[in-house]
Amino acid sequence: MTDFKILAVSGSLRKNSFNTAALRAMQELAPAGVTIELAEIGDLPLYDDDVREQGYPATVQRFRAQVAAADAVILATPEYNYSVSAPLKNAIDWASRAPAQPFGGKPVAILSAATGPMGGVRAQYHLRHMLVSTNSHVLNAPQIMITGAGSKFDAEGRFTDQAGRDLMVQMIDELVKWARRLKA
Amino acid sequence: MTDFKILAVSGSLRKNSFNTAALRAMQELAPAGVTIELAEIGDLPLYDDDVREQGYPATVQRFRAQVAAADAVILATPEYNYSVSAPLKNAIDWASRAPAQPFGGKPVAILSAATGPMGGVRAQYHLRHMLVSTNSHVLNAPQIMITGAGSKFDAEGRFTDQAGRDLMVQMIDELVKWARRLKA
Amino acid sequence: MTDFKILAVSGSLRKNSFNTAALRAMQELAPAGVTIELAEIGDLPLYDDDVREQGYPATVQRFRAQVAAADAVILATPEYNYSVSAPLKNAIDWASRAPAQPFGGKPVAILSAATGPMGGVRAQYHLRHMLVSTNSHVLNAPQIMITGAGSKFDAEGRFTDQAGRDLMVQMIDELVKWARRLKA
Amino acid sequence: MTDFKILAVSGSLRKNSFNTAALRAMQELAPAGVTIELAEIGDLPLYDDDVREQGYPATVQRFRAQVAAADAVILATPEYNYSVSAPLKNAIDWASRAPAQPFGGKPVAILSAATGPMGGVRAQYHLRHMLVSTNSHVLNAPQIMITGAGSKFDAEGRFTDQAGRDLMVQMIDELVKWARRLKA
Repeated sequence: MTDFKILAVSGSLRKNSFNTAALRAMQELAPAGVTIELAEIGDLPLYDDDVREQGYPATVQRFRAQVAAADAVILATPEYNYSVSAPLKNAIDWASRAPAQPFGGKPVAILSAATGPMGGVRAQYHLRHMLVSTNSHVLNAPQIMITGAGSKFDAEGRFTDQAGRDLMVQMIDELVKWARRLKA
Repeated sequence: MTDFKILAVSGSLRKNSFNTAALRAMQELAPAGVTIELAEIGDLPLYDDDVREQGYPATVQRFRAQVAAADAVILATPEYNYSVSAPLKNAIDWASRAPAQPFGGKPVAILSAATGPMGGVRAQYHLRHMLVSTNSHVLNAPQIMITGAGSKFDAEGRFTDQAGRDLMVQMIDELVKWARRLKA
Repeated sequence: MTDFKILAVSGSLRKNSFNTAALRAMQELAPAGVTIELAEIGDLPLYDDDVREQGYPATVQRFRAQVAAADAVILATPEYNYSVSAPLKNAIDWASRAPAQPFGGKPVAILSAATGPMGGVRAQYHLRHMLVSTNSHVLNAPQIMITGAGSKFDAEGRFTDQAGRDLMVQMIDELVKWARRLKA
Repeated sequence: MTDFKILAVSGSLRKNSFNTAALRAMQELAPAGVTIELAEIGDLPLYDDDVREQGYPATVQRFRAQVAAADAVILATPEYNYSVSAPLKNAIDWASRAPAQPFGGKPVAILSAATGPMGGVRAQYHLRHMLVSTNSHVLNAPQIMITGAGSKFDAEGRFTDQAGRDLMVQMIDELVKWARRLKA
């Protein structure tokens, strides 16, 4: 397992986002040979097809190149109004267009964190539909829905839920295996 | 039917958007006493909960006030990656938060236009989930999915499909009735 | 609030179903003037359009008449494979066809119970789509997802979770109000 | 491509079902070395977990064994109330339980036929959620939604739409490739 690069995208822009913190936990938990890089999506403009036709803005080009270069992607989404956040949808839409649709054929894993008891599961199931459109290959399991997130991160934003941390280790492992299986 | 105000929101930012053009057709088709105003959502910032906590930006305040003042809302969405566009999700998320959640209890109708054969129906069914969260009251029927939009608008962007125009007249009529029924 | 009749449908056929037990709890909790009757759907044949064309079987006629006669309906569904149970889908399909589509215009409330942590929420959101098709008017809130059902019912199948019982009282109250608002 | 066995399941029980007819077209179109067998699901009882605990009924055992033995599965579903038919959901639920969950890891392709303009697409997107739960590997593309089915089959039920037939050939080809890629 050498030099496997995962791009992690948090759908929340807030500084103390539980979703971003969950991705930071995964960075720490990644085994040797696996690196997880966090993408910046807060500086992408709102998707506008007229803009796209004039050429992708620089921030969009950067994000598209990051997706293209990754061996796999992890998407973490808050649940707003029972669906994914607008910044995440925006990033996916910018990265899903020709040429060289970067999400096409990409192995993807999904997680969500929410303060409520449902842990963002409704957002995850909308997200799975979107990733059929991008022709991504989404991991079926494990699925990580961090419920009651308010009590599972400490003051420094460290994810302290051991069962959840174990699932994260398992998710990274399964994602690497899934990517290799698809590549074979 | 006097002085019924509908706010129409197009999820597409492009100038020649079929969804925006569809809403313009509805403006023309509105009967006496019903006015349809088009909202601007392209100048809202990407949703960021930290920004919200510091106070809604001016453009967001404007949009929230428009939703609050409307007797009903019509949402038109393109389908990107089998879901609503990011600008529409963004507008809904900004308008769905306290205080005075503007979409709460609001009568809403949905339409979509797409160049493909499915007419945006997948986006509509994600949108319906979002509008449960906002506690909106969404019209069940008629449902307008404008398929093959490329051939149903003329060079000036006028919607020329008579069956579709008839459905639009019916949708406005049903939306007004639905709003009155909910208000009684 | 006199003589308001609710038909309750459990999507689970098993004798000790948590969903059926949840509906029994609602029967007990119904205020004076509101009666909740439990429908039997286990004896409906698997939906077959050829059979329908020859005439609805007796058990189907009974169920359709019950839905038609009710002032409102409560649907309780287990979540199998992230969607509603087959018996519930079957009952809805039989009751959704002409003539006199019984679910049309009907006020409906939804709940689900599951042993897992998601409480059946994915099934509920599929169910909401189905009920757009039947032109039912589904209550937005409260939403009842009974999570960890294994520990919330006693040996006699009595629902012992006080917060859940309070939500049930609220759901019945909101459903009656919703039905009256739609009728006005 | 020798001896690749596909199990095809039609969600419609009616004799002249467009979905069943579509699967018959695929049987004809299968290349040398690929066989497509049609499953019978109309004789499965309505799913009841108490029955399951006493042992799978004979018809259920037969269906489970067929799924287990297949190299891949094609599911064809009518769209009733914007979701899959009850007989199809019923078959999936019976085949998704322990021991030896037969749909686990299975390559699956989906199609739908409908007389209306949407071609059953809403049912397909519910079905995709179900197949995450069963840990199946669903083909992203091609997607086959047979719209206006009433005019695309002749009096003998033969599928006459050439573009659709071409997609079927492509779907079989992609399904075989997908199964081999997953097995490698």
